[in-house]
Amino acid sequence: MKRPVVTIIGLGVVGGSYAGALSAAGYTVYGVARTTDTIAKAKQRGMIADGGTDAAPFAAKSDVVVIALYPGQVAPYLRALAPYLRPGTVVTDVAGIKSLIQKEVEEALPEGVEFVFAHPMAGREKRGIDYADPAVLRGANFILVRGANTSQSAMETVRKLAEDMGFERIVEVSAQRHDEIIGFVSQLPHAIAVALVNSDEESAETEKFIGDSFRDLTRIASINETLWSELFLGNRDNLIRSIDDFTRQLNAIRDALAAGDKDALEALFKSSTERRNRYVKK
Amino acid sequence: MKRPVVTIIGLGVVGGSYAGALSAAGYTVYGVARTTDTIAKAKQRGMIADGGTDAAPFAAKSDVVVIALYPGQVAPYLRALAPYLRPGTVVTDVAGIKSLIQKEVEEALPEGVEFVFAHPMAGREKRGIDYADPAVLRGANFILVRGANTSQSAMETVRKLAEDMGFERIVEVSAQRHDEIIGFVSQLPHAIAVALVNSDEESAETEKFIGDSFRDLTRIASINETLWSELFLGNRDNLIRSIDDFTRQLNAIRDALAAGDKDALEALFKSSTERRNRYVKK
Repeated sequence: MKRPVVTIIGLGVVGGSYAGALSAAGYTVYGVARTTDTIAKAKQRGMIADGGTDAAPFAAKSDVVVIALYPGQVAPYLRALAPYLRPGTVVTDVAGIKSLIQKEVEEALPEGVEFVFAHPMAGREKRGIDYADPAVLRGANFILVRGANTSQSAMETVRKLAEDMGFERIVEVSAQRHDEIIGFVSQLPHAIAVALVNSDEESAETEKFIGDSFRDLTRIASINETLWSELFLGNRDNLIRSIDDFTRQLNAIRDALAAGDKDALEALFKSSTERRNRYVKK
Repeated sequence: MKRPVVTIIGLGVVGGSYAGALSAAGYTVYGVARTTDTIAKAKQRGMIADGGTDAAPFAAKSDVVVIALYPGQVAPYLRALAPYLRPGTVVTDVAGIKSLIQKEVEEALPEGVEFVFAHPMAGREKRGIDYADPAVLRGANFILVRGANTSQSAMETVRKLAEDMGFERIVEVSAQRHDEIIGFVSQLPHAIAVALVNSDEESAETEKFIGDSFRDLTRIASINETLWSELFLGNRDNLIRSIDDFTRQLNAIRDALAAGDKDALEALFKSSTERRNRYVKK
């Protein structure tokens, strides 16, 4: 099968990493960004064959279009681009929430064009093409969400793209289930890291005392506030439920502490050790 | 200055890593462990020059004795060993809590022997000599706590040891301040990681969906329950205060979410980003 020609809209950390990975895998990749400066960088680094600030001419000659923008930008961008897409084009996204955008995105789809919702579980705390790096995609998880009318063949096209970029585990779930799980595995950890850092007393000179555990837990407290406030609010009910579940467990530790109950603490620690070892093999 | 001869009691992750690092730095190191099997491993790997299951003969010919055992074992062990220590010996520990043990340790000290409380901010989730590795010490923080009658020269002896093992930032604080800070930078992150993992719904097949953030935040949920229940209970009031401060911040996020307040969320994220970037330069 001939490799599809791919246009990537948005060359930030995720879009740029996609571009670099696909170009390295032998795809013809076009890039679209807001500034010619970004396009020049992407070309110079061999991430794209060509590109520009106007998506239309590139999308019109592509088999796959990746909209690597913030969640709320996907549907409006697709609407603007719709007249230029050829029938048979597969469009995909990288947004971290799905239920909220699914309907609007599908309504923006022109006749004969399919949409495959995708969420690459990879990224970095920084933003912009300077922090794009195909290495962050390798071995990462990749989530596919089938749209209301998405064909199996369109799903396979995006799955193949993910494989060729080096994603390791590719799973398909519903938009609703995606958002439930992401509320727990991604958004809750970000909320926790932010709260942990914000609960530091300002005078503590924390940096002199931290070990790896604190460093690891707070890495993602350095956070893109525009993107993540959108992600949080776009998945509000799921995230609140995850926060409440977590708070109950933290209170179980607090209660055991307050009661001086060593057995209860040990039981909670054994449970977490067993679970952690089960789902992370490293 | 001649390098002191060092006996390390307990060749687990921390004691074993100390032994390996000090031997590599040219020190004469003796090791004491509960089994001859551990001693044989330590010798074979060049971590110690000699050793055995009885500390007395080795401690008696050492300038520095490191008690690398759990916090509650330090004072009892020191009491048993006291008759064999030469005047001028400096004894130190690696315990993660200080206020609780300080008085009992100091009462166990024989005439002419000094104690320097120390807390290396390094370790691993696993236990035992097989997971000892001097590399975990390199670049880590090291906390010194001066005892009631500790001389400057004894402090300098342990500081030099820490430097030679590769610790990067060595700070001195009071036992009380140590425990306050550790409740926040070390114990709270462990409580959070445990609660996060324990709040997972059992059926979620979480492993298919996790990204680096979840992996990083939960690494320490795999936890030595014997040691950490002792550490938590031995620093109960400080840890409960840290949990409560953290919970307030998490609730601030939850409140902003429930109110749909994007500005409030962004402000919390900006604050955490600014703080994280300030105290962790990487």
